[in-house]
Amino acid sequence: MTRQLIERDILTRFRSLILRRLDDSAVFRIGDLKLAYSTDSFVVDPIFFRGGDIGKLAVCGTVNDLAVSGAQPVYMTLSLIVEEGFPMADLRRILDSIRDTATKADVEIVAGDTKVVGAGGVDKIFINTSGLGIVIREVSGSNARVGDKVIVSGFVGDHGIAILSQREGLDFKVPICSDCAPLNSLVSLILKTSEEVHAMRDPTRGGLATALNEIAIQSGVGIRIYEESVPVRDEVRGACEMLGLDPMYVANEGKVVVFVSSEDAPKVLEVMRGHEHGKDSQLIGEVTDGPRGTVIMKTRIGGERIVDMLTGEQLPRIC
Amino acid sequence: MTRQLIERDILTRFRSLILRRLDDSAVFRIGDLKLAYSTDSFVVDPIFFRGGDIGKLAVCGTVNDLAVSGAQPVYMTLSLIVEEGFPMADLRRILDSIRDTATKADVEIVAGDTKVVGAGGVDKIFINTSGLGIVIREVSGSNARVGDKVIVSGFVGDHGIAILSQREGLDFKVPICSDCAPLNSLVSLILKTSEEVHAMRDPTRGGLATALNEIAIQSGVGIRIYEESVPVRDEVRGACEMLGLDPMYVANEGKVVVFVSSEDAPKVLEVMRGHEHGKDSQLIGEVTDGPRGTVIMKTRIGGERIVDMLTGEQLPRIC
Repeated sequence: MTRQLIERDILTRFRSLILRRLDDSAVFRIGDLKLAYSTDSFVVDPIFFRGGDIGKLAVCGTVNDLAVSGAQPVYMTLSLIVEEGFPMADLRRILDSIRDTATKADVEIVAGDTKVVGAGGVDKIFINTSGLGIVIREVSGSNARVGDKVIVSGFVGDHGIAILSQREGLDFKVPICSDCAPLNSLVSLILKTSEEVHAMRDPTRGGLATALNEIAIQSGVGIRIYEESVPVRDEVRGACEMLGLDPMYVANEGKVVVFVSSEDAPKVLEVMRGHEHGKDSQLIGEVTDGPRGTVIMKTRIGGERIVDMLTGEQLPRIC
Repeated sequence: MTRQLIERDILTRFRSLILRRLDDSAVFRIGDLKLAYSTDSFVVDPIFFRGGDIGKLAVCGTVNDLAVSGAQPVYMTLSLIVEEGFPMADLRRILDSIRDTATKADVEIVAGDTKVVGAGGVDKIFINTSGLGIVIREVSGSNARVGDKVIVSGFVGDHGIAILSQREGLDFKVPICSDCAPLNSLVSLILKTSEEVHAMRDPTRGGLATALNEIAIQSGVGIRIYEESVPVRDEVRGACEMLGLDPMYVANEGKVVVFVSSEDAPKVLEVMRGHEHGKDSQLIGEVTDGPRGTVIMKTRIGGERIVDMLTGEQLPRIC
């Protein structure tokens, strides 16, 4: 329904050709430079979770949108909307986390805004970030090519299940951590390794399934995925069964899906596995010449099923 | 207190020299270009008011921050946080207003984000905008010079009183309208008219008094203002008396205060008065060599009083 709202009520009003591409960042030229520009608001609940917090998430979200567009993030803005009476200790912990993540991602926060809103106006804290990056090599979601291999940088569904299990008070023997991480150094390594990276996306809200469908539609290709190759932790699979979810649709916050030529796929996979945020990378499928705009999964038992864009409900306040 | 929070908890963490200038926009070079970059979140309540709405406000706020930094706004991002069940008719009205204001300001919305939050998470709708502009001539708040004249582009306090009177259900014979307007064409005209414009600011939250104090502190100068020259509508003055407010501290959303050399002040004032958003411009004072960081007002009855930064309480959710 959010997608419908965006398509029917937003895109019809704002006739920007840049916006209409619906890529992770807006990419444009100013003078001699090609820049990428992106924004995201974060309303995650709980605000502190295993593996991160709303502050880390807000930096990573924007850094990753720029990175998967082929840009090196340079500058960011930070806008806080804080509920009156929000504990200062929590605010400081979030600000520390923002600082540490920005330092790690090597991005400078250059502008900001802070609003304090009376009780009932906002639940705890919302954060908006925007970011500006210099495009190293433009990577669009509309350029995946028939024959490309599809690589995902690690286990899927960790972020969503970390949030949900905390929200529902579920306990696991091995607690599930959010994968929230800045991906710009991994992506920059991938781009250095191959000139034949045709598309990238960070599969956040809506999970891997949504990201794959978006790329299949934007690029006008088919995508075939092998269920047994998609890395899912046992604990995440178990939690998904309990909660009635499909890990393919559960949010990630530190993963990238890469579309690269068949020839370059092995070396890209190898360098990804050598990086801290890509060590569990897997080749999960390939791009086919049809059916266009469709993602098909070869199941474990040898069948085939269509992985739709809109299965199940979107999880609220997951990021 | 928000200022204290920003100074003590935010600026101590983010050591960006660009951020620390605390100007209306971050200004930096990328390649051969000088860019301005700014962000603002809008939480105004009510969301529709005489003279505008939260959407118009969100575009104008960012456009004006870029403009008073001496930049021509080019690209914007738009991020919506909407309460579940928010009426679609209201959302469409706000989106129309955003589109119309962006068209008027000649700025392109190139990226966005939309989050829908369950009831209790957010009150109606919050909007964040960020904007990127090309600096035509850098104008900082720290460059006001002794001898400069101070010009304000029209009546002060209209926005704050329009919001408050609606919130409090006050009725006036002549209803007060918000002054919310994009100022980039006015500012561009001012910059074309004089090479000796040394500082500008749009006096929003905290009103004219706060903007003048910020410039006095950043520039290390004194500012002397003549009370009788500050344009305040009779209805705004009356409402302020009723509500126990000082119009000098009440928010504006379509005003600019300009610091220009004494020689160029008359011609700048003249072109401002010829522009639709500057027709009630007034020369209200001048920059003095002391006391540094202090704004002094010559009152109607011939006395002098210090116009502090922090008189009275900040009005919540005024923008």
